[in-house]
Amino acid sequence: MTVQKTQVAIIGGGPSGLLLSQLLHRKGIDSIVLERQSRDYVLSRIRAGVLEHGFVNLMREAGCGARMDAEGEVHEGFYIAHQGRNDRIDLEKYADGATVMVYGQTEVTRDLYAARDAMDGVVIHEAANVQPHDLKSESPYITYEKDGSEHRIDCDFIVGADGFHGVSRKSIPGDVLKEYEKVYPFGWLGILSETKPVSPELIYARHERGFALCSMRSQVLSRYYIQVPLTDKPEDWSDDAFWAELKSRLPEDVAAGLETGPSIEKSIAPLRSFVAEPMRYGNLFLAGDAAHIVPPTGAKGLNSAASDIYYLYHGFMDHYLNGDSAGLDGYSEKALARVWKAERFSWWMTNLLHLFPDAQEVDQRLQCTDLDYLFSSDAAQASLAENYVGLPY
Amino acid sequence: MTVQKTQVAIIGGGPSGLLLSQLLHRKGIDSIVLERQSRDYVLSRIRAGVLEHGFVNLMREAGCGARMDAEGEVHEGFYIAHQGRNDRIDLEKYADGATVMVYGQTEVTRDLYAARDAMDGVVIHEAANVQPHDLKSESPYITYEKDGSEHRIDCDFIVGADGFHGVSRKSIPGDVLKEYEKVYPFGWLGILSETKPVSPELIYARHERGFALCSMRSQVLSRYYIQVPLTDKPEDWSDDAFWAELKSRLPEDVAAGLETGPSIEKSIAPLRSFVAEPMRYGNLFLAGDAAHIVPPTGAKGLNSAASDIYYLYHGFMDHYLNGDSAGLDGYSEKALARVWKAERFSWWMTNLLHLFPDAQEVDQRLQCTDLDYLFSSDAAQASLAENYVGLPY
Repeated sequence: MTVQKTQVAIIGGGPSGLLLSQLLHRKGIDSIVLERQSRDYVLSRIRAGVLEHGFVNLMREAGCGARMDAEGEVHEGFYIAHQGRNDRIDLEKYADGATVMVYGQTEVTRDLYAARDAMDGVVIHEAANVQPHDLKSESPYITYEKDGSEHRIDCDFIVGADGFHGVSRKSIPGDVLKEYEKVYPFGWLGILSETKPVSPELIYARHERGFALCSMRSQVLSRYYIQVPLTDKPEDWSDDAFWAELKSRLPEDVAAGLETGPSIEKSIAPLRSFVAEPMRYGNLFLAGDAAHIVPPTGAKGLNSAASDIYYLYHGFMDHYLNGDSAGLDGYSEKALARVWKAERFSWWMTNLLHLFPDAQEVDQRLQCTDLDYLFSSDAAQASLAENYVGLPY
Repeated sequence: MTVQKTQVAIIGGGPSGLLLSQLLHRKGIDSIVLERQSRDYVLSRIRAGVLEHGFVNLMREAGCGARMDAEGEVHEGFYIAHQGRNDRIDLEKYADGATVMVYGQTEVTRDLYAARDAMDGVVIHEAANVQPHDLKSESPYITYEKDGSEHRIDCDFIVGADGFHGVSRKSIPGDVLKEYEKVYPFGWLGILSETKPVSPELIYARHERGFALCSMRSQVLSRYYIQVPLTDKPEDWSDDAFWAELKSRLPEDVAAGLETGPSIEKSIAPLRSFVAEPMRYGNLFLAGDAAHIVPPTGAKGLNSAASDIYYLYHGFMDHYLNGDSAGLDGYSEKALARVWKAERFSWWMTNLLHLFPDAQEVDQRLQCTDLDYLFSSDAAQASLAENYVGLPY
């Protein structure tokens, strides 16, 4: 068995783990990242694409902002289509000049890998049977297998950034961990197509046939979604059927301008709200999907992971550079306070825009009134905008 | 059969009907008010007590504001108790200086009767079997019985301000009328007691045992409510049991200051959202509870009736004084737009503060987070405040 030593061992080589590793390295704090999959596999995941301004700043602070700033698109607003209208939320106006950046998670991850490579950061891929140990002690360690042999990493702290199905959360005893969960009675069928986006800014559509979203990765790569029953499968939907259904849920003038084409990816994602508490157990710290999932409405998934990373980054800096452990000690409480607000917002926006199978006519009228009120009120639009661009860390 | 003639016949002698009659009279427009009950019965009803600033101005315009302005209490804020804290919503700060007036509905009605008497306004009490006729014609009329004889009122227009159970809405054919309804799975047990209110401003309490409200009619007359199951009856609750339950739902320091005493009234009200559309049929116009009911959280019942009266008042003025029927023609659409926003707000505030029997732990955490977010956000508090003081007519 080989034994490695580091200060912070990070389980999970997605954007959260890589970003933390990169930020710490630049402050002279050593880390090792362990990833179960290959790098190619990680880079093939198609996920979120709307970054909060806080996340954007964190990428810059990590020295990974150059390509994002060059190729990403700053969005100063987005649309909500409802009752035949296409109303705009002016983020810049209502969120004191703050905006969001449209830049795919895949690109974020690619930039982080490049930065880690440039600094000779240690990222171990295809690490099997990863297992954290002695979490309550001063010297926790991780074991894993790779290339047929056993390995061990001794460390001061372990960060679990290994997603909802990862080993980290499962390492916390059941009598310590409390889990909150809500599963929504529908999914999102999404496609990626090499077409020009129907709108330069995102369109979230509330329609009596169900929710739809017109999103994008760039001005030549579109991402569209429609709400579907959980029983549907991607193969139930031909490209033609998808485009027809999407058009039926958009205002007529928007639908008329929709460029269609073959899908290069098609999948269905369920919608879930999930929070595990606490986010620290001994010297294990959970981050991102390992501790919390939001429904995708409002794009808070990756962004909530980033706020965890922000708190951890500052906590480790205070610990290693200033000998102050208050940041790490307060991590769970501080991270959860912001996580729950992102959960609240995602739940609210999901309720605002989706067709619920058990909704009565009165519920649908109240939903329409919610939208009518929103666009009649500066205060309501300001509240939506401050959440959408990201509440302060 | 005696036959009377008037311009506007008003069914219902509650505050809405009286206010409209008074406003019209001062503009030289003739009306007759028909009320099924006696005046004493109408005045014995204990109802709402928080008046929007728009209602307050309408009372002044009707020449009925003197006692209200002398004896009513201007409230510049209210409290929401949650998670052991008692947080204040500063209405004056967040609603551009607007406030609400605490002045009981009984007092409003009393002042309106006095004003009607002073002008020799015609209010016919104990009118039985009131029935509107020929609503689609240019000459509708109403028949009723009183003191054993039959009577008839010929008029230009009929206003149905006769409440949820009145005859007016039922006179609209079922294939024209569309009704939306939501019944909540709990009620409010309310008491009136001659004690000093526990707080100079209202306290709405969200608690894991259920909602509670500390309200008042004056600084010597308190009105308290607790959420109870729909199966409870007032006689199930002794005064002692009520006070004990109320205290358990308030922050400790608030409960410690609660002055208790014998209840002089005790009753249970169900919570319902209800809207009937359209609010005009031929020459019949519905107003107030005849067309819509809100759950009492947020005090929008009487205030929504007042906004109907505002639109009718202006519509009749335009019709009779300027020969312009646009106001009356647009009444239903205009009134309903504001009614639905009041329905939305009352539903939102009910959801925010009540314990729902089917709520899971995640729902309760989201509810607490909604409150945490509210008190962390100027925009969210401004949105609540603008609704609480009353959206513009």
